Amino acid sequence: MADKITPRAVDYSQWYIDIVLNAKLADYSPVKGSMVIRPRGYAIWERIQAEMDRRFKETGHENAYFPLLIPMSFLQKEAEHVEGFKPELAVVTHAGGEELDEPYCIRPTSETIIWAMYKNWIQSWRDLPLLYNQWANVMRWEKRTRLFLRTSEFLWQEGHTAHETKEEAEEEALRMIEVYRSVVEETLCVPVLMGRKSEAEKFAGAVHTLSIEAMMQDKKALQAGTSHFLGQNFAKAFEVQFQNREGKLDWVWATSWGTSTRLVGAVIMTHSDDKGLVLPPSLAADQLVIVPILRNDTKAMVLEYCEKLLGELKAAGIRARLDSDDSQSTGWKFAEWEMRGVPIRLEVGPKDIAAGHVMMARRDTGEKLAVQAAAVVATAKETLAAIQKNLFERAKKFRDDNTHTITDYEGMKAFFGLAAEDSAGTAAAKGGFAEALWCGDPVCEKKLKTETKATIRCMPLDRQTGIDGKCALCGAPAKHRAIFARAY
Amino acid sequence: MADKITPRAVDYSQWYIDIVLNAKLADYSPVKGSMVIRPRGYAIWERIQAEMDRRFKETGHENAYFPLLIPMSFLQKEAEHVEGFKPELAVVTHAGGEELDEPYCIRPTSETIIWAMYKNWIQSWRDLPLLYNQWANVMRWEKRTRLFLRTSEFLWQEGHTAHETKEEAEEEALRMIEVYRSVVEETLCVPVLMGRKSEAEKFAGAVHTLSIEAMMQDKKALQAGTSHFLGQNFAKAFEVQFQNREGKLDWVWATSWGTSTRLVGAVIMTHSDDKGLVLPPSLAADQLVIVPILRNDTKAMVLEYCEKLLGELKAAGIRARLDSDDSQSTGWKFAEWEMRGVPIRLEVGPKDIAAGHVMMARRDTGEKLAVQAAAVVATAKETLAAIQKNLFERAKKFRDDNTHTITDYEGMKAFFGLAAEDSAGTAAAKGGFAEALWCGDPVCEKKLKTETKATIRCMPLDRQTGIDGKCALCGAPAKHRAIFARAY
Repeated sequence: MADKITPRAVDYSQWYIDIVLNAKLADYSPVKGSMVIRPRGYAIWERIQAEMDRRFKETGHENAYFPLLIPMSFLQKEAEHVEGFKPELAVVTHAGGEELDEPYCIRPTSETIIWAMYKNWIQSWRDLPLLYNQWANVMRWEKRTRLFLRTSEFLWQEGHTAHETKEEAEEEALRMIEVYRSVVEETLCVPVLMGRKSEAEKFAGAVHTLSIEAMMQDKKALQAGTSHFLGQNFAKAFEVQFQNREGKLDWVWATSWGTSTRLVGAVIMTHSDDKGLVLPPSLAADQLVIVPILRNDTKAMVLEYCEKLLGELKAAGIRARLDSDDSQSTGWKFAEWEMRGVPIRLEVGPKDIAAGHVMMARRDTGEKLAVQAAAVVATAKETLAAIQKNLFERAKKFRDDNTHTITDYEGMKAFFGLAAEDSAGTAAAKGGFAEALWCGDPVCEKKLKTETKATIRCMPLDRQTGIDGKCALCGAPAKHRAIFARAY
Repeated sequence: MADKITPRAVDYSQWYIDIVLNAKLADYSPVKGSMVIRPRGYAIWERIQAEMDRRFKETGHENAYFPLLIPMSFLQKEAEHVEGFKPELAVVTHAGGEELDEPYCIRPTSETIIWAMYKNWIQSWRDLPLLYNQWANVMRWEKRTRLFLRTSEFLWQEGHTAHETKEEAEEEALRMIEVYRSVVEETLCVPVLMGRKSEAEKFAGAVHTLSIEAMMQDKKALQAGTSHFLGQNFAKAFEVQFQNREGKLDWVWATSWGTSTRLVGAVIMTHSDDKGLVLPPSLAADQLVIVPILRNDTKAMVLEYCEKLLGELKAAGIRARLDSDDSQSTGWKFAEWEMRGVPIRLEVGPKDIAAGHVMMARRDTGEKLAVQAAAVVATAKETLAAIQKNLFERAKKFRDDNTHTITDYEGMKAFFGLAAEDSAGTAAAKGGFAEALWCGDPVCEKKLKTETKATIRCMPLDRQTGIDGKCALCGAPAKHRAIFARAY
């Protein structure tokens, strides 16, 4: 299987698609822009979901479910919101054999239908906060799609909260982007920068948007989660007022926040190599595979030994499996399990057993060493932890190595190359994250985007002090420190 | 709150709606026929999901995700299937600002899109079986809806499996209806009859359908889950052939099976009473609530005592909470927690503490007794188990008491009353489950339905032996023993 994967150096985009298809993570579907998530891909999503959901509940959130369809008129109630989403809507015009009086769209996001309900549920400050989350499918009609990273339909969670005060809502938006950061860094092993979006890049309908941004192996940025402070925009659009503690009517303050199956793509792109998928142990359905070396005369003995070892590994809480299929060669099986991204492979042959050890191979580094039989379980546990740590550190080093401070516009153009070069796939190799001062003017932001395709990914929250200098784009006094990059 | 609930004897339908709305399980939405599942309702669904999902995985199934939209032409490939679902479809005609070349429908069920994919994934018997399940939303446009029980959009799981042989597929269909039976009886405490549907009532596109059928408190039947043996119908419609072990091409055998958020409605309707919701401990987010009797002079002491007790209950694995809110009266709080269906209420006042006991009230029976302080945790655990058992036994007794053997058509008409009486809501009170012999002729089945609204719910698998008599509908020699009832 492994030889079907195009090397990254040859064609990065094709490398990614080859891994997704060969590892059977997802497939194209007959529905334009929609993908099928196959069991091995869905298993990754389930583990991400479980970790996210646990943390949402720990922070006081409850799950609910709102309708898939939204009356078209609802979207129009928030001017920026409809502007942002209208071009991407899928529209239901007929149902039950009849044409509908008012068409529905399939939710591209659920602020409007949820705030229409919040109007009925919120009367007093005693009804607040509402801390709701929804696991759902959404649809945004896309012209150019890429498995997991950009599809017309995708699975996600969307949190929608309602608060008494501005401060509480702003704290909530910050709390949830921090939840995302910790899950993405700790469970997915994907390092991210956490910061505020520019006005041009914020969510349609938000006062401001926070995001976490990762760097893929082609040095492009990938937005991995967003959290929006919505102010009173949706409360006003849907007339959601409450009686505050002083007995006066006020508009409710809001946030929304989301992460999606795009995270599965982020994991694949961040860690994998030319042999195939590389998965963090936290997300791997199989953390360890035992591949026995099967020869006719010793087969029974070797399998018996492996079965016993499997039992010990499982008893220690390791998700282990034994590949006892003898219709395939050992070499084919090694390549297959590497391609599927299993973090540890154990090789057990009659000579190993006689020598009192097994061979242990690490998927992330390719290292292979003999481990004494009595130490296999403990070493496997340590190695899984080491892989989890190494994947994060390696990705972080790659990102940091490819992050550069740029101080002027010529430097920016040189860093990103001209947009024209990008189509040849060469320009991206020069780039990465450009950390630069910015005046805050959308005009110079737009100029850079037009000329180089690079955008402001975020203004990292922890890098906004000591700003004393000029905008790298126009030379005016700077207000922010921003990360510029080409993005997925 | 409790006084807002219409008594069952006055209006059973309204009683059900009052409970759903007052206990904040669900709400009506601005989208015709779609409901909002509120957090307390969704929490019930999450527990049902968790238990189902665990059992699916134990029986070797994997989760996947297929597109929401299905090309209209796909539905037309299986003649009975399109016939059954076409009147209920919601249709997307526009997307991304353009009219689509071919309209899509929102999935009413996913056989067609899934078998279109299976065609790509199945070549040889080595690729079989495929044992996939999907958690998803589906849409069937309904004219008359009822919260949880019948809504245009609902959440469900749908299993879709592919097999080498007829026997294997039939075994799978049976295995999964048995999984449903065990979850519904053990976790939901809802007793069911498991049997085969008649031709008239089977799934559109199936060779045969198995179902589990419950009896609600108004003696109407509720179908709680179905499992279909699809034969080779969908394989033929989507041209899914495989090379079998003999090297010959054969069509793939199939099953599909599903349960939905309707199960939440079944739980509510089966166990609740005129005070509100009654929940099995297995599904209750809060299994126990401590209501302290708060008076100014002893408040601090009582709360301290309750906090300590809460900690002990939680440490024992009981989902317990403390209602220390003193803005509401104790009586109001008792009624509120009863209405919300919490299985056990502990009342703790200064006199109780002085006497070395707490008062324990059971939601299912209304019993209340003093429990020695040292025995509270152990008694609470035992009581939760007793409630779980009692709810099932009580519902089973009710069903059995309202199941009668009927031998002739006059008896059937008397049992179900005339259809005309039903609109006054009185006829149903006479009915229940009629167990009767049946010749298998759809003509007499249809006659009964027209005259009494009663249908064949299923032919129980364990009651098909010793059939020696006449059809209760037409007097012809009987072939089956069937359960007839009016149904939701």
